[in-house]
Amino acid sequence: MIEDKNQSKTDISSLGEFGLIEHLTKNFKIYNKSTIKGIGDDAAVLKFEKEHIVVTTDLLVEGVHFDLSYMPLKHLGYKSIIVNLSDVFAMNAIATQVTVSIAISNRFPLEALEELYAGIETAAKVYGIDVIGGDTTSSTTGLLISVTAIAGIEKENVVYRNSAKPNDLLVVTGDLGAAYMGLQVLEREKEVFKVNPNNQPDLDDYTYIIERQLKPEARKDIVKLLSDLDVKPTSMIDISDGLSSEIIHLCKQSKVGCDLHEDKIPLDPQVISTCEEFKIDSTTIALNGGEDYELLMTVSQNDYSKIKGNPNLTVIGYMKERNAGMHLITRAGTQIPLKAQGWNPLDAS
Amino acid sequence: MIEDKNQSKTDISSLGEFGLIEHLTKNFKIYNKSTIKGIGDDAAVLKFEKEHIVVTTDLLVEGVHFDLSYMPLKHLGYKSIIVNLSDVFAMNAIATQVTVSIAISNRFPLEALEELYAGIETAAKVYGIDVIGGDTTSSTTGLLISVTAIAGIEKENVVYRNSAKPNDLLVVTGDLGAAYMGLQVLEREKEVFKVNPNNQPDLDDYTYIIERQLKPEARKDIVKLLSDLDVKPTSMIDISDGLSSEIIHLCKQSKVGCDLHEDKIPLDPQVISTCEEFKIDSTTIALNGGEDYELLMTVSQNDYSKIKGNPNLTVIGYMKERNAGMHLITRAGTQIPLKAQGWNPLDAS
Repeated sequence: MIEDKNQSKTDISSLGEFGLIEHLTKNFKIYNKSTIKGIGDDAAVLKFEKEHIVVTTDLLVEGVHFDLSYMPLKHLGYKSIIVNLSDVFAMNAIATQVTVSIAISNRFPLEALEELYAGIETAAKVYGIDVIGGDTTSSTTGLLISVTAIAGIEKENVVYRNSAKPNDLLVVTGDLGAAYMGLQVLEREKEVFKVNPNNQPDLDDYTYIIERQLKPEARKDIVKLLSDLDVKPTSMIDISDGLSSEIIHLCKQSKVGCDLHEDKIPLDPQVISTCEEFKIDSTTIALNGGEDYELLMTVSQNDYSKIKGNPNLTVIGYMKERNAGMHLITRAGTQIPLKAQGWNPLDAS
Repeated sequence: MIEDKNQSKTDISSLGEFGLIEHLTKNFKIYNKSTIKGIGDDAAVLKFEKEHIVVTTDLLVEGVHFDLSYMPLKHLGYKSIIVNLSDVFAMNAIATQVTVSIAISNRFPLEALEELYAGIETAAKVYGIDVIGGDTTSSTTGLLISVTAIAGIEKENVVYRNSAKPNDLLVVTGDLGAAYMGLQVLEREKEVFKVNPNNQPDLDDYTYIIERQLKPEARKDIVKLLSDLDVKPTSMIDISDGLSSEIIHLCKQSKVGCDLHEDKIPLDPQVISTCEEFKIDSTTIALNGGEDYELLMTVSQNDYSKIKGNPNLTVIGYMKERNAGMHLITRAGTQIPLKAQGWNPLDAS
């Protein structure tokens, strides 16, 4: 579908490496005064008025992290930026710069790369990010995107994942499990398409969960909200691998335990209905689904009045002493140990 | 050779992503006090006393940038760091941190990744670099390494590539063409090996050029030397794509012309003898070979006395007004326009 079977398409190699980068990024704007020099020298030059710098990097690989048979390239470009920004926001910092490196096989025409960069440009615009560098190279096979994101932050505002304390509230943003269920629907439609390519899928009932998979957003708004509410979380982490796995990271690194209450886990109605349709337990999905790009944080009980009732923040449990362990408290009141590989209802005896 | 045919080798997937990163980086040291938080959170946290930050990134792809049939994994890990550091040094900055992301197919056993990281660790030690983050993911096919390097630098010390002036001296470090000729020897030995796997190659005559290909170094020493000599180049760029191409970048971005003198181009005797053996013109190789990771700079004539006779710095030409163009002045005194694709002696009529 995306391969270069159309001879009117432009061969990437016709531009050369320098022409290619210049062509793809010529419309990119600089939004931040911290960017002194962007693309065009051996390295970018930045200047932050803030004391600390936050740096994170992620790699997206075709066939591992995305499937181009249902992931449009523009969305992929957008998502490649989002997954990195989410890590920066999880430090309580506002990302301002990214570098973007792409390895791409020559089965892709120039127009495909333009789509990919259009998605990157859109994310840069929406989140106020400057694309300050990168590398574009050929690949012997698939498509690969490597992004590094950077932010300046005041020293006192940095929130690590190793500083949760017993009795802190466990708080999550947004809702969970939607990206994973969106993926299940897309995988199912791909199988249907293989059998009957003329079938027009009706995806109206799945718009939210599919968008969460194909065009996720990162919670820049939460960093601002926390600042407005005058709440500094005691710890924070982004939920890319599922709630269960991230809670365990946070507990282990903070040397605390926790109780997670099943009935408090925020789920979108479309996640619940799709889970019923797929005969999957929705708690299992929220715990293990991944790719939600929400933030998981711990907040001091003293700050409870500031976050109470905020539609963006849901208290889902409490931190405990380390020796209390990490547990899911089910709706029935049963206490089940949290597992990194997720909670398997069959284990609950 | 490197594929996992040995059943006693460890399967990467047995460790899981988090266990893998921890396993591979557990011996890595932190050398710089600018690293506040390295690996282990959503993002690394840095603090620079200097005003500006320099950021650069590069991607190395199997089958495009390296061939594992003669590139040992440890050398590859080392080189992946070097190519990025070279870009930082070309800004006149001392690199202090890198992030390293690796996509690797499961045909590689854990022991192969350990070799790769041993090379990264060695480069980190030799250059005083902290590995502050990264991502390790599976790949459906080959090996890919994405590195981002960072440095703090005083504002007044940054050297860009767009600030050369007419009459400046054109100066290069080290010698040129060796990495390319090393590659030619390795490619030839690979063909010999295919025909006769029992043949033991005698590479004694090529040790320097092969080392320049397999284990290049980046010129951190030059940044220190320039500081000691109290010379701030008027412009600087690293030579990764061959002298000709880099001179053209520097001239175009600085809006100047230049004369490059063929008889001044520094060549190692092994390059000259190997070029003779391969019946290739050594000037062509120096102009277009690439991968030398030397620095090309322009220096004000006022600073000539400071650099004169320094064995690390060779004056190879002079900058001119833009409308004078960019030329190679041959040994015979002929003036030939420089080309990004290199100087083809057949064009010289």
